[in-house]
Amino acid sequence: MLTKEGCVQRRQNLWSLLPSSIESVLIGDDRHVQYFCGFRANPISFSADQESALLLTREGRSIFFADNFTRRTAVAEIFVSEEVIQGWYDHKHSVGNRHQALSQVLGTHLSRVCQTTLLFEKEGISVELASVLPEAQTGVVVDRQAMSLGAIIRELRRSKLADEVSLLQRCMDAGAAGQAVAFEAVVPGATELEVYLAVQTAVQRAAGLACIVYGDFRATNAEAFKLGGLPTTYQLKDGDLMILDFSVVIAGYRSDFTNTVAVGEPTVAQAAQADACIEALFAAETKLIAGASCSAVFNAANVTLVKRGYPELPHHAGHGLGMEHPELPILVAESTDTLVAGDVVTLEPGVYTEGTGGMRFEHNYLITDSGCKRLSHHELGLQQA
Amino acid sequence: MLTKEGCVQRRQNLWSLLPSSIESVLIGDDRHVQYFCGFRANPISFSADQESALLLTREGRSIFFADNFTRRTAVAEIFVSEEVIQGWYDHKHSVGNRHQALSQVLGTHLSRVCQTTLLFEKEGISVELASVLPEAQTGVVVDRQAMSLGAIIRELRRSKLADEVSLLQRCMDAGAAGQAVAFEAVVPGATELEVYLAVQTAVQRAAGLACIVYGDFRATNAEAFKLGGLPTTYQLKDGDLMILDFSVVIAGYRSDFTNTVAVGEPTVAQAAQADACIEALFAAETKLIAGASCSAVFNAANVTLVKRGYPELPHHAGHGLGMEHPELPILVAESTDTLVAGDVVTLEPGVYTEGTGGMRFEHNYLITDSGCKRLSHHELGLQQA
Repeated sequence: MLTKEGCVQRRQNLWSLLPSSIESVLIGDDRHVQYFCGFRANPISFSADQESALLLTREGRSIFFADNFTRRTAVAEIFVSEEVIQGWYDHKHSVGNRHQALSQVLGTHLSRVCQTTLLFEKEGISVELASVLPEAQTGVVVDRQAMSLGAIIRELRRSKLADEVSLLQRCMDAGAAGQAVAFEAVVPGATELEVYLAVQTAVQRAAGLACIVYGDFRATNAEAFKLGGLPTTYQLKDGDLMILDFSVVIAGYRSDFTNTVAVGEPTVAQAAQADACIEALFAAETKLIAGASCSAVFNAANVTLVKRGYPELPHHAGHGLGMEHPELPILVAESTDTLVAGDVVTLEPGVYTEGTGGMRFEHNYLITDSGCKRLSHHELGLQQA
Repeated sequence: MLTKEGCVQRRQNLWSLLPSSIESVLIGDDRHVQYFCGFRANPISFSADQESALLLTREGRSIFFADNFTRRTAVAEIFVSEEVIQGWYDHKHSVGNRHQALSQVLGTHLSRVCQTTLLFEKEGISVELASVLPEAQTGVVVDRQAMSLGAIIRELRRSKLADEVSLLQRCMDAGAAGQAVAFEAVVPGATELEVYLAVQTAVQRAAGLACIVYGDFRATNAEAFKLGGLPTTYQLKDGDLMILDFSVVIAGYRSDFTNTVAVGEPTVAQAAQADACIEALFAAETKLIAGASCSAVFNAANVTLVKRGYPELPHHAGHGLGMEHPELPILVAESTDTLVAGDVVTLEPGVYTEGTGGMRFEHNYLITDSGCKRLSHHELGLQQA
């Protein structure tokens, strides 16, 4: 989970980027509230999607605002100097509009704290919540560019601190347990949904908690060679290729890696296609280092596939990992992104051919100044070694 | 899933409540976007929490706005006259701020559609999105009260239409499969998490799709007699009482019902306490009819418990079901709410006593003008009959 040290460091990193004229910031995007203080309403709870806010001051105060029902579903410890919890529901009286309740309590406390210039996230703050802001700005000039607070935080998010990498690693370790069980669950006659249920159970058992497992759980084959999305009740048959490209989400952070498992014995063409994908993956891996251009990483994977006689990679070679999908950097042909130290990225070359089927293989990496560290450790291949 | 007929009827119901001076409305709360057009980003997907918007006009136009990545994760069919999908990510170029991308496309189309007075949801629209609204209001007078659009829609949401009841029924049927498997999964030595995994699997298998299962999965006993929340790795032991109070969320709608299962043979005191809870449940059930006061329903449950020598009911006797938790009506001692036809509510009396343990039993109901219809059909009791 995120740590106090990490949250404090991220707040300091934010202040170092903001002009000194800004004395306080109000954060409302639920990802960013978590990023700076650890609070996230558990999506596996009655408070999924409910609003909260975080007020930070340059002098070091951090004040968390939520209603009591939202507060109860925190995924982890909260690291702030003060919590202001609105008693929205007490099990004794009926309830009113909880958004208005939150804005009222925010308004009351703002007048106490904020005698200074406030910057707020216009993408993450509702009009209702903004209605109580006194003197507020939605953008500032940073590095000579006019930037919104949301944009600044998104840039910051790329360079993960140790607690974030550790949380991503926890997602990956649980994800690997899911990939391992897939080798047993993918059998003729099983449905895509049954494979998903086996994976989901193995992931949560390994994680030791209830968490979200989402992604592509679809069988491809010679005719239907490009499919994605959540599992259906389609029954696997000999010759199918089951793509398991899934994310494990723990406390808002997510891993994202694929393996493809053959139903029955893979054909010679399927095995050769898998070899090409995995070769492309490791070709791209050699390009991972802070400062590398993301289009060069894409090209390394793409060229490998084309040299082996397969079609050009029809989707990204990978993307950044963290709290959303996809997020920066984007590893595509025409990307203008450059890798930075602290980026956590995924590589996922795939080939989808009529007559053989579709497949994809994937690993996750931490970018460093000297290269990369592979964070995912699942077995790649159409069959268990 | 929600139907076209249902969405069209809900839009007509909304227009019938709004003053004729309002010619168009902009909806941004993800629950309300779904309520009126069927779109919801699947929480088990990469688009959980991403923004969308719905513009409705009195003359019958309905325009859905989202980016292409959010659109892809729709839980079900979308019923609108027009979709405006922003091509935010194309697998070829890097990505910018998707919130700004959405507001730009909204701004462009608003100038084409909206020459008239626009009312918008200030709780559900971000400042970024609102920045492109031309001439807009955030409140109107309805039935002589100043009301926000969000408040009006929340009132409307209470009277469920046939498609909503049918979707809730689907959640309940899947939830019943989870309750049934709990009788087998609750054994000495199992962890709360293992029971959750068994229930979660059974629910999704019955539903035929991946869906969220959340709630209280905690063992109580003579010492720890009041616990709630997601499962832990606590190991069940003889004499414990496992409370399974969970919601099944399919396409945003949720069931919510409890059973409590004894680990091993229940004691005489535990069995007597369970009888009292179930008696209280059915006492409250007899009060369910459109027009009844919610405090009277609470009292029926509470009086039954007290007459049997148990403590007063320490939490609500129940609440409304739909898209949030809890929602109106609230069945508590000092409630000012009155049941209306179309309310779907839950009843959940519980008793938590030192020396015996905590337990709760629950059913879900549709309120009608002549009484109620019980929608949940799981078996209640500490042991399987």
